[in-house]
Amino acid sequence: MLLEPIRWQKNRIVFIDQTELPGRLKYIRCRDIDVLCEAIKKLKIRGAPLIGVAVALGYALAALNSKSRTIKGMENDLVRASARLKATRPTAVNLFWALKRMDDTFFCKRESPRPFAMTRLKKAILKEALSILKEDREMCRAIGRNGSRLIKNGDIVLTHCNAGMLATAGYGTALSIFYEAKKQGKRFRVYADETRPLMQGSRLTMWELMKNRIDATLICDDMSAATIRDKGITKIIVGADRIARNGDAANKIGTYGLAVLAKYHGIPFYIAAPSSTIDRNIATGKDIPIEERKREELIYVGSKQTAPSKAKVYNPAFDVTPAKLITAIITESGVYDIKKFRGV
Amino acid sequence: MLLEPIRWQKNRIVFIDQTELPGRLKYIRCRDIDVLCEAIKKLKIRGAPLIGVAVALGYALAALNSKSRTIKGMENDLVRASARLKATRPTAVNLFWALKRMDDTFFCKRESPRPFAMTRLKKAILKEALSILKEDREMCRAIGRNGSRLIKNGDIVLTHCNAGMLATAGYGTALSIFYEAKKQGKRFRVYADETRPLMQGSRLTMWELMKNRIDATLICDDMSAATIRDKGITKIIVGADRIARNGDAANKIGTYGLAVLAKYHGIPFYIAAPSSTIDRNIATGKDIPIEERKREELIYVGSKQTAPSKAKVYNPAFDVTPAKLITAIITESGVYDIKKFRGV
Repeated sequence: MLLEPIRWQKNRIVFIDQTELPGRLKYIRCRDIDVLCEAIKKLKIRGAPLIGVAVALGYALAALNSKSRTIKGMENDLVRASARLKATRPTAVNLFWALKRMDDTFFCKRESPRPFAMTRLKKAILKEALSILKEDREMCRAIGRNGSRLIKNGDIVLTHCNAGMLATAGYGTALSIFYEAKKQGKRFRVYADETRPLMQGSRLTMWELMKNRIDATLICDDMSAATIRDKGITKIIVGADRIARNGDAANKIGTYGLAVLAKYHGIPFYIAAPSSTIDRNIATGKDIPIEERKREELIYVGSKQTAPSKAKVYNPAFDVTPAKLITAIITESGVYDIKKFRGV
Repeated sequence: MLLEPIRWQKNRIVFIDQTELPGRLKYIRCRDIDVLCEAIKKLKIRGAPLIGVAVALGYALAALNSKSRTIKGMENDLVRASARLKATRPTAVNLFWALKRMDDTFFCKRESPRPFAMTRLKKAILKEALSILKEDREMCRAIGRNGSRLIKNGDIVLTHCNAGMLATAGYGTALSIFYEAKKQGKRFRVYADETRPLMQGSRLTMWELMKNRIDATLICDDMSAATIRDKGITKIIVGADRIARNGDAANKIGTYGLAVLAKYHGIPFYIAAPSSTIDRNIATGKDIPIEERKREELIYVGSKQTAPSKAKVYNPAFDVTPAKLITAIITESGVYDIKKFRGV
């Protein structure tokens, strides 16, 4: 099954509103980047690779929507659009990578000796965005193929947050490995952490694993340690939002704790992510900016108040797992033992 | 401030419905043990020491309510009541300890050479239950005094679940230490884990720490590891529901993971609990029964659906922390280095 969390249709971006899952599969059609920026901020669209695809399509939308008759005017429109797309989420590097690639396309085509006419320029930009989308799907499948070699019959794998088809243009990163292993007929089970506060594990990962008939069991985040020990977890596989040159990896808050637990229990800890997640400009995890989100996420769940309304809150969206706690990084080009990883 | 989560008033048990916190401070008056058993099962009353006090008062209520005119008939009523109270929660040993003490009172008074008249027997039973309540408060204060010696100016302490006044007849166990240290003028800060799925940390611990003007910050359970590292947590203090002779301790699910994190980060990990929590009949944590709770707790928060309705769920309410990960156990009689702990 290929679920399309995002697609381009009749000059619109169509995407799943992931905040409505698992209750409702609702698609939003979006014709301007205001709606898109808001959707990314509110996590209707989330997951580092999917954010990359979304902003590329957003960039194309801004180009198509540009009413300017001059290249210079269009450049101004795109610079503005790009700045707003960049301001949505600070941690996922794929966002900056995708926007840079879109910028490069614009500037390269613009500066070619025989400048494209406006329409042809817009087409070239859209084509690039659609390439990013298509490549993302292909990358995910390659990650699945590479990572599936690590899955053995009888494995019980723990995953955190959602590194699935819903986090990408399709298939997923960490979860792509499960889909591929299942296709190969391997027998294994998965435990999924709830992943507070936004519950991407229970809302999204459980939803897509069940849709794909993977044997999955839901636990709360504070059950991970007991589950690893008492249920015999054999490995942990998660995604990443940004990886430094030395292999330190930023991922959803909670990942670092799982890596410590893996170490303590002597089981391998894998990161699965496309190579676009690797930020070669960053030497170590210390330089990765960590987004802090609104306190309200810890005060309410839906309409239910779960903490005193004036409670002081610390709400980081990500943490950094040091390379020394990671066994290997799985990308579309292979499985890299962390000891040999140098920002491949 | 002394908050009374439970009290005896005009032949009724009056208790706070803790499932209504932090939104509403609602007291329930209860005149029969049906209401009490349901309240314990539904966690309106929770916390190992408070459950002990509650079942003792429940036993007294059953005695007072007994319409039997013979000692034998009353014994039958009490045996029935006791069995129902025992069936509410399987892990907290204080429940069994309190009921045994109530049984001993009944059988001892009953078998005395000059048998008490029924009314005097009922009075003796009630007196014993009220002693258990009073002793619990005194024990909590003593735990606070003993544990407060461990708190230093500048400490940043992490706690899990609710080992506070709401978990006892007053003052609390782990949190009693904070109240006493604050009274002594020590400067320190506290981080409280949310504690999924029932959020005793965010709903109850934050509520009572704020009421007592302790500098407290709320985090989700999956933020513990990053908070320990990035915010410089200096120690972890939690309660316990049952402690084996060798020092292995069952406490709210998530405790074991925190103990592993404490070990990894080189900070001390303390258990604070009254000595009635120590089960001398149990050699190691392996023999402590662990309650598994309903799957619905992970599917909904209030009316908000947070996981697919058919999701498979693992929902243990407790985990066992091995003695080797515990620095010391703080009881009303002292602070016991785990190496010297032999079920003191």
